[in-house]
Amino acid sequence: MQQHDGPLARLRRGHEELVLDLLRRHGPLSRAELGARCGLSRTTLYDIVGVLVATGTVVASVPEAGRRRRGRPVERLALNPAAGQAIGIDLARRAVHIAAVNVAHEVVGTASRAHGPDLDLAGRIALVEEMVDELSGDSLRLAALRAIGVGVVGPVASAPAPGSGGGSASLGAGDERDTIAELLRKRFGAPVLVDNNTRLAALAESVWGAATDARDVLYVRLSHGVGGGLVVDGALHRGASGLSGEFGHISVEPGGRRCQCGGSGCLETVASAGAVLDAYRAAGGTADDIAAVTAAARAGEPAAVTAVAAAGRRVGVALAAVCNAIGPSTVVVGGELASAGAVLIDQVRAALTEGLMPVARPLLDLRPAVLGEGGAALGGIALVLHRSPLLSRYPNREDREDGDVS
Amino acid sequence: MQQHDGPLARLRRGHEELVLDLLRRHGPLSRAELGARCGLSRTTLYDIVGVLVATGTVVASVPEAGRRRRGRPVERLALNPAAGQAIGIDLARRAVHIAAVNVAHEVVGTASRAHGPDLDLAGRIALVEEMVDELSGDSLRLAALRAIGVGVVGPVASAPAPGSGGGSASLGAGDERDTIAELLRKRFGAPVLVDNNTRLAALAESVWGAATDARDVLYVRLSHGVGGGLVVDGALHRGASGLSGEFGHISVEPGGRRCQCGGSGCLETVASAGAVLDAYRAAGGTADDIAAVTAAARAGEPAAVTAVAAAGRRVGVALAAVCNAIGPSTVVVGGELASAGAVLIDQVRAALTEGLMPVARPLLDLRPAVLGEGGAALGGIALVLHRSPLLSRYPNREDREDGDVS
Repeated sequence: MQQHDGPLARLRRGHEELVLDLLRRHGPLSRAELGARCGLSRTTLYDIVGVLVATGTVVASVPEAGRRRRGRPVERLALNPAAGQAIGIDLARRAVHIAAVNVAHEVVGTASRAHGPDLDLAGRIALVEEMVDELSGDSLRLAALRAIGVGVVGPVASAPAPGSGGGSASLGAGDERDTIAELLRKRFGAPVLVDNNTRLAALAESVWGAATDARDVLYVRLSHGVGGGLVVDGALHRGASGLSGEFGHISVEPGGRRCQCGGSGCLETVASAGAVLDAYRAAGGTADDIAAVTAAARAGEPAAVTAVAAAGRRVGVALAAVCNAIGPSTVVVGGELASAGAVLIDQVRAALTEGLMPVARPLLDLRPAVLGEGGAALGGIALVLHRSPLLSRYPNREDREDGDVS
Repeated sequence: MQQHDGPLARLRRGHEELVLDLLRRHGPLSRAELGARCGLSRTTLYDIVGVLVATGTVVASVPEAGRRRRGRPVERLALNPAAGQAIGIDLARRAVHIAAVNVAHEVVGTASRAHGPDLDLAGRIALVEEMVDELSGDSLRLAALRAIGVGVVGPVASAPAPGSGGGSASLGAGDERDTIAELLRKRFGAPVLVDNNTRLAALAESVWGAATDARDVLYVRLSHGVGGGLVVDGALHRGASGLSGEFGHISVEPGGRRCQCGGSGCLETVASAGAVLDAYRAAGGTADDIAAVTAAARAGEPAAVTAVAAAGRRVGVALAAVCNAIGPSTVVVGGELASAGAVLIDQVRAALTEGLMPVARPLLDLRPAVLGEGGAALGGIALVLHRSPLLSRYPNREDREDGDVS
């Protein structure tokens, strides 16, 4: 599983990213200009550019203006806009979300489709195919598809190497996850990476959303369940066994309500959409879905305000413990409950501030999420952009001859 | 501050580490053998080896057996055992600890010296000089000193680039820290990295101590204060502002005792050495230092067992919240209180297990620290080994011409 992630593989990925980054930022460059800017040796640079051209990621051309009077014409290298497309997919509980970007990392299309809770895996994959087909055409050329990042419900221990068929060490639903990866890989002919969808939403908020200026981000999602994800120094944090970001199972009420995780008194039992709905109705409220409760809270209906605010305080207390431990610069709050706006966020902020060590209080920024339901699909793209599948095209000598160097 | 940490600098550091790693594991190799194993292009490899030889890290020699009948003799490259030494220093509250390793990463000497709580900075630096002088000689050649890693009390935001003079963005005592780095750099003529000493103890436990098999480690230290550190995917975690690992300031008793951090009811107010001593004496115990209390707890004295066990439970509850959030594989408990052994650890384990989500319970390993007081000095070495100072010898074109690529 780790064969594409040794020091040598990381070096090559780093070389590629450096070259692609320069072309992304400066537009077309000659090899000499690229060499002066990247500082790689001539041989290394020619190797890297050769692979990028061979795989169609980069195109070489001789512009009129670039032809010299004498000598060889000067080729210029540019990103191939039709290449390197990536698709992100979120297989959520009751919906499929997809997004696509081109090699310049511009989003070229998104789509969402709800489905019943009982739709089986084959049905959900068929839905993905339909949605991708509809996006195809001008904006999305499937022939140029480079990689797919998929978000799924539940823990995923480690994202597999691109091209390895998508296997992943996981707890519980590992087989289904492998099946998803395999089906998508066969259907679209591109490497597939799988990760937890809430974690991908966290990555998306840090790459495309509310926290693009931050490298250490805590994202919490208050929805059907309570979960989240951590971005640590710009990268997705997974934890040793893929259980990072389980904020919903922090115990906040010893001996409290039974939780679906098997524990009791978890944050999820008091701050999920269902728990808030229950609290609201126990206080005499009459709405019967969470969207109505958050709308009522925004409108100032006392039972809704009380239920939402209480959940917010509990979230703030639990996150304060985590923030003291990991010191993020930014906390992002998403999920259906976040649409209650200030009624929720103000209480989260008050409890979070109170629980933080005083020196850390002015250093932490709390913000609502901005990406909404499509976040995890964008996170799938961020995931594959962070692990360039080009690597699988290189021979990996270190593993063949030398085991794992790390 | 980041000028040595762009993508290009990381690549070069990666190249060097690859070459040094191969020589460490295989012993002397020819350039051709090295080339076959590392997979770098000939030009890149020759560049890297050239710098390593020029800086004295690697030596080239022609063994008798290696001389060919005809043609040029085949040089073999090997680590220079007299080169690349690193020193780790812990400037703790009332003691200085030092450790030294050679280029093969073998510990060649350690020393500890207690001092009064009022010894000023100049006095502590003088103590460091004395201790290093005493270690010098056969095992430590100062001329070959490559880098110094220093642990200090209090938060440090980011380790500065080696060779940059040791500046660091920090909260509070930043000036003193810069002074420490500058004084040591001038005295020993080597780059200096500074980090929080409890965090360095965490790194040391994961590199040399109780958790060498783990890449995601939570280390908690129960001592005069309560603090800790996180190792995430093998690297030290700092948090956005250097406040990572502040487990002692997780609120465990709303409205509880005032804490020195300015908050109240912090874990430190119930689980520090002083808090346990207070609890023990309130229960009728007569010992008057924490070593006597932990000894009494090991011996089964009820007041000591009660006081230590209560602290252990509080620690377990607080760490469970953190572990649900970050999913480490290993929790290491150190500090004076840990010498109470099972009386403490069993209670930490019970509360930690109870607070973890059930699926995570069998995946977490709890262990006592093994490195003791010298841990942070070893961590200082681990810190500099993770950030090769060789890098500062390379021109950094990307920054000169092109800003930050990352």
